[in-house]
This record gives sequence, C-alpha cells and structure tokens, in this order.
Amino acid sequence: MSDESSDANLGLERLIFFSDAVMAIAITLLAVDLRVPEIAREVAAAELPRQLVEMAPKITSFVISFVIIGIYWIAHHRNFGYIKRYDTRLILLNLLFLLFIATLPFITGLLGEYSYLALPNMLYAFFAACIGLAVFAIWRYASHNHRLVDEQISADLIRAVNVRGLVGPLVFLLSMPFALINPLYTQIVWWLVPLSAWLVTRLVARKAKQMEH
Amino acid sequence: MSDESSDANLGLERLIFFSDAVMAIAITLLAVDLRVPEIAREVAAAELPRQLVEMAPKITSFVISFVIIGIYWIAHHRNFGYIKRYDTRLILLNLLFLLFIATLPFITGLLGEYSYLALPNMLYAFFAACIGLAVFAIWRYASHNHRLVDEQISADLIRAVNVRGLVGPLVFLLSMPFALINPLYTQIVWWLVPLSAWLVTRLVARKAKQMEH
Amino acid sequence: MSDESSDANLGLERLIFFSDAVMAIAITLLAVDLRVPEIAREVAAAELPRQLVEMAPKITSFVISFVIIGIYWIAHHRNFGYIKRYDTRLILLNLLFLLFIATLPFITGLLGEYSYLALPNMLYAFFAACIGLAVFAIWRYASHNHRLVDEQISADLIRAVNVRGLVGPLVFLLSMPFALINPLYTQIVWWLVPLSAWLVTRLVARKAKQMEH
Amino acid sequence: MSDESSDANLGLERLIFFSDAVMAIAITLLAVDLRVPEIAREVAAAELPRQLVEMAPKITSFVISFVIIGIYWIAHHRNFGYIKRYDTRLILLNLLFLLFIATLPFITGLLGEYSYLALPNMLYAFFAACIGLAVFAIWRYASHNHRLVDEQISADLIRAVNVRGLVGPLVFLLSMPFALINPLYTQIVWWLVPLSAWLVTRLVARKAKQMEH
Repeated sequence: MSDESSDANLGLERLIFFSDAVMAIAITLLAVDLRVPEIAREVAAAELPRQLVEMAPKITSFVISFVIIGIYWIAHHRNFGYIKRYDTRLILLNLLFLLFIATLPFITGLLGEYSYLALPNMLYAFFAACIGLAVFAIWRYASHNHRLVDEQISADLIRAVNVRGLVGPLVFLLSMPFALINPLYTQIVWWLVPLSAWLVTRLVARKAKQMEH
Repeated sequence: MSDESSDANLGLERLIFFSDAVMAIAITLLAVDLRVPEIAREVAAAELPRQLVEMAPKITSFVISFVIIGIYWIAHHRNFGYIKRYDTRLILLNLLFLLFIATLPFITGLLGEYSYLALPNMLYAFFAACIGLAVFAIWRYASHNHRLVDEQISADLIRAVNVRGLVGPLVFLLSMPFALINPLYTQIVWWLVPLSAWLVTRLVARKAKQMEH
Repeated sequence: MSDESSDANLGLERLIFFSDAVMAIAITLLAVDLRVPEIAREVAAAELPRQLVEMAPKITSFVISFVIIGIYWIAHHRNFGYIKRYDTRLILLNLLFLLFIATLPFITGLLGEYSYLALPNMLYAFFAACIGLAVFAIWRYASHNHRLVDEQISADLIRAVNVRGLVGPLVFLLSMPFALINPLYTQIVWWLVPLSAWLVTRLVARKAKQMEH
Repeated sequence: MSDESSDANLGLERLIFFSDAVMAIAITLLAVDLRVPEIAREVAAAELPRQLVEMAPKITSFVISFVIIGIYWIAHHRNFGYIKRYDTRLILLNLLFLLFIATLPFITGLLGEYSYLALPNMLYAFFAACIGLAVFAIWRYASHNHRLVDEQISADLIRAVNVRGLVGPLVFLLSMPFALINPLYTQIVWWLVPLSAWLVTRLVARKAKQMEH
C-alpha cells in the first residue's frame, strides 16, 4: 500500500484532525455519565448533598479518564509533530487507537458504577494500557527506519520516544493484579502514570538537549 | 448552479472538515449505546461478568460499525484527495452521505439489541450499502469528465476508484438474503468487505504503479 | 469594539471552525433521539416491524431537521465565503445562530414525539425561522456598507443574498397558522423551503452571471 | 520542559482546534439535558404547554451556560490570538480549562433540576469562576515576561487582559453567598458578568486605541 504514502500535508492534517475530533468528543462524553440524581422536591435539600457525595467514585473515574485521554492526546500530539508522511497502515493503526479511545467512556462508566469490584478495575487498566500500546505502535511503525518521520530525527530520540511510550502501558498492566487484593489499590497505582510520564519526559528532554549541544 | 463551482481551497477544506466532524461524532457516539448494566450491589460481583458476556452482540455491532465508518472515512479521505473543486451538487451528495452516517448509530443500536432477528440485519446491510453508494455517487459525480478532480488524473485511475467503490455496497446488498436463512450468516458475509476492499486496493495500487512507470 | 476588527485569517477560520463543529454535532445528535425500542425477546420478531413503523413521525422530524441544518450550513458556508473580516458583534450574532442550532435537537425531539399537536409544529417552525433570521442578520451586519465583506462584491449581489436569506424564514413563519387547521399541513408547507431556496439560488446565480458579463 | 517550547504553528493550531472542539461539544451537549416530556396521548394537548412552562428553570440554566461558554470561548479566542508559542505547561493549563468546560453540562443539569436550592447555585458559580480562573491562568502564564506571546505586545495590554480576565471569576465568587439568602439572587448577580465584561472590554479597547496613537 506504499503507493498511498505521500507527503501530502492536507491528507496528514485531515488524519490528525479526525483523531483530535474523536478524542475531543470522547473526553467531553465522559461527563455524560455523571447523571443528575433524581430526588423528590420535598427531600431534595437534605438528600442532594448526600447523593453528590455518593457520586464520588463516578467523579473520580471521570477525572482519571480525563487525565488519561489528556496525557495520550499530548503523546499523540507530540509524536505526530515528528511524523511527516502517512500511509494506509498508519491510518489503520490510528483507527485502532481511536477504537480504544471511543470505548473508554463505556469502560469509565463501568468503573464509576462498580469501582468496588476487581473486574472493572482490571478491565479499565487493560484498556488504558491498550490505548498506550496503540500510541506506541503508531510511533514504532512510523519511526522504524525513518519510515514516515522527519529524516533529521536522531536514532536516540526515536528510541527515547519508544521508551517513554512504554511507561504508561507498563504501569497499567502491572496495576492489574493489585485489583485482586483490593480494587482501590489498582487506582492508586495508576497515579504513577502521570508521575512516571513526567519523569521520563524530563529525562528525554535532558537527552534531547544534550544531543543538540 | 455551476456558478458556485470554484477552486476556492477554503470552501473545499470546510466541506471536508464538516464531513470529518460528523464522521468523528458518529464513530464516537456508537459506544454511547453500550450502556453500563445496572445491578444491585449485593449480587454485582457474580452478575457483572455474566451481563458483560450478554452484551457480546452489542459490542460486536459496535466494532462492526466502527470498522465500517473507519473504512468509509478512508475512502472519503482518499477520494477527496483527488477532488480539487466543489459545487452545490457535490455538497448535496455529501450531505446525503452524512445523513446515512448520522443514522448508523441508531441502526447499530437496533442490530445490537435484536441481532437474532432478520430485519435489523437486513436493515443494517442496506444502510451500510447506502453509505458506500453515497461515497460512490460523490466520486462518480466529481470525476465524470474530470468535472471536479485534478485534470492530470488518468481515466484508468478514475475507473479503478469507481470499481473499488462498488465492492463494499455489493457485498452488503448480497448479504441481505442470507439474513432470511440465518441472521448470523449476514454478519459473516460482512467481513468480506474489509477483505475485498483490501484486495481491490492492492489491485488498484498495482495498476496505479504501472501507470506511473 | 471595532478595535477587534481585523483581517486576521486565523481568527476568522477559528470562528468558522467553531460554527462548523457545533453544526456537525447538532446534526449528528438529531439521531440520538431515535431510540431503539425495547421489546421482550419472545415477541420481538412480530413487534419490531410495527414499532419501527410507529417511529415514522420521529424519523420524519429527524430527516426534516437534517435537511434544515444542511441548508443553513450551506448558507452559512456560502455567506462566510464572502466575509473577510470579523469583529465582536459578528461573533455575538454567530453565537445567537449557534444557540438556535444547539436547541434544534430538543425541538426536533418534541416534534417527533407530539407531531399530532399544533404547539410543537408551531414551535418548530418558529425556531427554524429564527435560525434563518440569524443567518440573515449575520449577512446583513457583515455586508452593510461592505463592513466585513470583500470590497469587490457588488451591491446587487449583497442585495440578492439578503433576499435569498429571507425566503426560508418567511416560509416557516407563514407555515405557523396552518398548524391551527391541521398540524400535518405545517410540515407540508416546510417542503417549500428547499424548493424556494433552490429557485432563488438559481435566480441569484443567473443575476451573478449577468453581472460578470 | 522548555525543550518542547517551539513556535511550530501546526502544534499550536492543533491545541486551539482541540480546545474549540471540546467547547463546541460541551455547548451543544448542554441541550441534551432538555429532555422531551413523556405524556400519554390522550392528555398531551392539555399537558404539554404546562410541562414546557415547568421546564423554565432547565431552559434558563441551558441559556446561562450557553452564554458563559460563549463568553469564555471569545476570551480564549482573543487571548490565543496573542499567543505565538506553546509548551507542555500551557497544554496542561489548557487541559485544566477543558476539564471545567467538560464538567459544565453536568453542573448545568444539576442547576436546572434543583435551581430552588442553594447548593447547586453555589456549585455552579464556583465552577463558572473556575473556568474563568483557568482562562486567566493560561494568559498569566503565557504573557509573563512575554513567555509565549508576541514580543510586540505592550505591558499595558498584558495588564489590561489580566484585569479583564478577573472580572468574571470575581462576580461569580461574589454571587455565591447570595445563594444562602435566596438561590434566585445568585442567578441575578450572574447577569453582571456579560455586562461587566462588556464594560471592561470597552475600557481595554479605549486604552489599546490610545496606545496605538
């Protein structure tokens, strides 16, 4: 399918735009699961605060998913900053990424409703890992032998982005067995993702700066 | 209405953008139909796995529709890569295409809920064929006598894209009578669409390469 | 607020893009109101066809709204093709237009559920007229004394677009009293909108061609 | 993370586009909360007008949120007109802004359902203030020492935009105690936001004009 490979900017822009639109819709739809509680008018004043507090697991899983889509949007945004061409296989890998993104609101709803069970926590960690692995696969495919990326990108940078892309999925996969001990533990492990992403980004940044000098 | 025909890039970009946005929303809304099952807390641990397994037909039809919109997005993306001008009729044909796309989440929900009946399977195949025929009509209208496409595109390529555009709708229409034997058969036939699309794309690509040399 | 008036292309593009996104979401959300009927498995085979037929008014109002947003998108698209600058007042008029667009899915749902009553038909006609009047107001504001449009646009063309913009709202407003005789009559009158829009567009096109020669 | 700071136009455009898409979806999803009342056919003619009148608080909160997102979209649009570069921190601040925007439909639904209670009014005012403070934080971060804005922007203009950005949040925060006296008072105070925004914009505009001469 290499015949479709082209440096046509418009085509690549449209691919990026389509991905951004799907991510924007998914990130906004997350909140649709936060349903307004229905309470009779007579008891609403007393009941509403209690029911809002009971929504805590739903609100938590909404915020977690928002952060995750946000982080993967940044990663997608960064990686596509280096990608200069596209072909059909890249489109297909990107569609796989969008399939996981589009499924996340459902998985988030499941987690919000049944956060006290092991299964939704494991399922959520698995899907979050899949999103990250899809981002990783896009980068790996595009950067291998400078297939679709800028020629001037160093092999070191390509490797660094590869490593960075594996951190998130790894943490998510490692968090899965914790759900069997206590579902809450899983979610605590997840907060390592932004932390480790930030750490690895710093390291990559330092390396990139060293390479420039 | 040929007076509106212009090579104004911005106008064409806006048309493509609007189409991408509608497709992005439709593809993300597909998952909205995957509703979180409501189970009492006492039995949730035992019930949830069973209810998720029962959602299998809904998840299958979600994935099928995702793949279909994905494939037609690629086709739309590819064809509009050759289209350089637009007129009111192209906009109207494109709106017809978007009407079918916007209806697909409903048809998908119908299929997910009643996959064991013939009617939703036939309806789904019919709508999927309509989407493909709309893409075909857009291309046919735009490419006829190089009406709106790049002048340098060969008659062979135009014909090849025409053929490719008919494969999907044909398979979908042919799958319809199978629903009368067994609804499941219809869905098995559908998987021929990506397969045949891939095959025809390969053939078109080979032809395009031969033409270049 | 004229200080904000600028020919900054990016700002205008962003305004158009935001409008397109809202229209794309509204046009796709229309179908969300088409809910999959819930039927017990034992009677589904017999019940589903009947329930789908009963959805006819919902499907009709979905298609009507799709056509209306489609037509107004084309009008918005065309008019903004002439607009070259923007200021805060244009943004505010455009937000008013988007407010009516965002409300249409609700009004459509109302019409689909209670198409046999006069009130929803009159409300719908009123809102459809409001959308058209907002498009008209945008054009009137932008084109008055060539305030924000291309300097080379003739006064004749400006007047022609003004006239074209009033046709839709006029037909919708005139359709309102018909609802009091028979709600169905209102919807029949609406089909004059695309017809008259097409006619006036032809006339405008002929005039524009004459002006060129 | 300054290594990511770049004047790459495409990256900044993509950031703005993603924000616009989220705002467009949130502003259109507001109306999803306006649910069509379900009434038996026999009594619909008499019941529908009454039930629509009863929806007044929902419609009011829909319009308020539409105006608020509209105003903040204009502010975001204006401020990013001056911003010429971006870095990871700007992306994170912008994601925080989008988190509040994505939550607004839920808070709006809460206000529409329980407008007669103090809590939803205070919560709403708090969230609306948060959105404004996020816009303020984005501007403050980007404009400090001309970090990411155009070099030629005067310190006076930067200060003026800072002041303008604090008006909205201030009014919203000040409206909160009014909810304890009477929930309706809060909403009356909110209408000071567009008024004061308009006033301050006029003042900023006059100052900007004076600076030019």
